[in-house]
Amino acid sequence: MTRILELDEIRAALATVDLIAEIEKGFVAYSKGMSVVPPVGELLLDKGEVHIKYGFIRSQPHYVIKIASGFYGNPELGLPSGEGCMLVFSQKTGQLEAVLLDRAHLTDVRTAVAGAIAAKYLAPADTSRIGIVGTGVQAQAQLEHLESVTRCRDVLVWGRSEQSLDRYPAMASFRVKKTRDLAEIQASCNLIVTTTPSTEPLLDDAKIRPGTHITAVGSDTPDKQELSTECLRRADLVVADSIAQCQLRGEISHALRRGDIQQEQVAELGNVIAGVTPGRSDESQVTIADLTGVAVQDIQIATAVLRVK
Amino acid sequence: MTRILELDEIRAALATVDLIAEIEKGFVAYSKGMSVVPPVGELLLDKGEVHIKYGFIRSQPHYVIKIASGFYGNPELGLPSGEGCMLVFSQKTGQLEAVLLDRAHLTDVRTAVAGAIAAKYLAPADTSRIGIVGTGVQAQAQLEHLESVTRCRDVLVWGRSEQSLDRYPAMASFRVKKTRDLAEIQASCNLIVTTTPSTEPLLDDAKIRPGTHITAVGSDTPDKQELSTECLRRADLVVADSIAQCQLRGEISHALRRGDIQQEQVAELGNVIAGVTPGRSDESQVTIADLTGVAVQDIQIATAVLRVK
Repeated sequence: MTRILELDEIRAALATVDLIAEIEKGFVAYSKGMSVVPPVGELLLDKGEVHIKYGFIRSQPHYVIKIASGFYGNPELGLPSGEGCMLVFSQKTGQLEAVLLDRAHLTDVRTAVAGAIAAKYLAPADTSRIGIVGTGVQAQAQLEHLESVTRCRDVLVWGRSEQSLDRYPAMASFRVKKTRDLAEIQASCNLIVTTTPSTEPLLDDAKIRPGTHITAVGSDTPDKQELSTECLRRADLVVADSIAQCQLRGEISHALRRGDIQQEQVAELGNVIAGVTPGRSDESQVTIADLTGVAVQDIQIATAVLRVK
Repeated sequence: MTRILELDEIRAALATVDLIAEIEKGFVAYSKGMSVVPPVGELLLDKGEVHIKYGFIRSQPHYVIKIASGFYGNPELGLPSGEGCMLVFSQKTGQLEAVLLDRAHLTDVRTAVAGAIAAKYLAPADTSRIGIVGTGVQAQAQLEHLESVTRCRDVLVWGRSEQSLDRYPAMASFRVKKTRDLAEIQASCNLIVTTTPSTEPLLDDAKIRPGTHITAVGSDTPDKQELSTECLRRADLVVADSIAQCQLRGEISHALRRGDIQQEQVAELGNVIAGVTPGRSDESQVTIADLTGVAVQDIQIATAVLRVK
């Protein structure tokens, strides 16, 4: 029998899971070569884009297929832009054990948790202000999940318009100010998270201050780009969630194509977590984490939900 | 809301659908470039293999993602080797409209229907005996679906062992005889369907008689092979369900790699159906159809089921 889990059940289960620990284990398994993660399946439609991420960790009982889409005209129709589900199968018999009708919520959460993990290992110890670039679902989720990994509670959120900034909610745990000036983000924040679907660089390498950490989560395709490639050249440490995937997608792919960085300079998040590769070694370093989203995150969050349900 | 359809509902819906007409439309749309079908996603596990086929036909309201797996040790555990499901989403909003928990039955059926379509356009008019190579689910399904496209009712089934032959059921509409001698299939049948997961050629090019049509459905990976590459060289007409896919998977991929045929010689099934490319033009021709399974079949069968439910 296949179990069908609806979003409310999934949310309830999530509340009981140590997500950072689960997803860290996924990244470590990935970087140690203990997982099988084929290239991302992609479907480009007139109104949206779909990603299929799938794979398994060898030591586990399940394999997972995750579908997540973004249809950016949906809000005009009164629908969320994100949609998706996760399918959990047995590695031993192939049986479909569960369909998680998460409407892409698990993708939002596992992406935000990866941002928190990047900050945990790479943000400066004296994070004085958090800069959030973007105002959407992920801009909110990233900040929520930073709460447990930093003591900093001062936040500056950047949006393109007053209207979009108005949509960004007040947060119980943070003092949130808002701006339409990206230079203000770069001048006052030393932990910056970029969360937009931009195809033009937003951050200016000349304005990056020493001691800044940037997590770029918006770009997950070959086209999207939030950081100029010079930002990556300027960085002392560039970390990918998946080196293989970041060669094809995201900020690192642009910088590699432009020759602004070499692949050998890119560290992998799972190796930083495991201590195999050094993370931030100095408060004055500039560090960048490029997160394109890896199936091990989906595997870990889906199976964690299933374990507690 | 996402509808969840169980296998019994799917079977009931299928009974009301003109499957040959629906799937012919899919092949024609594919060959006319009216569909988007990315390369097959594949996951190889210790105990089985998984294929993810997905895409859309531009003029339609839905896109479809299909998962189907083969875990060949399952029968020893009392489970069917095949498993899978189909997901139907809106092309306009990305919403997941239905999950078809078909346990791979729709994959079995659409594969068998493609075999019937191949026979409809390529088998000799005077088909005197049908040869079925293999005794599994697909060996049975292929024969069932041939009923509407040929008047021939004499069948010879080949299996590796008496035990496997014993499992092949009696058929109400056909006179079925059984053999363990492949040469007998080649000597007496002029419509042969190969349905095994063999990785070694089973049919012998020297024994192919003029006027024979062969449909090869067993090989859907780069490794599996049921026909020697010389069989394809010997054929007057080689038809692929998808030329793009058959370059990477199935019988044609082996023959191309060996140089036994050239890509320009391969016709595409949708073009034969549409009359763009000639099918069989002479009763003495040897024709081969290589079916690796294309997402348009999944799209057509899933959306047809959904329309009548």
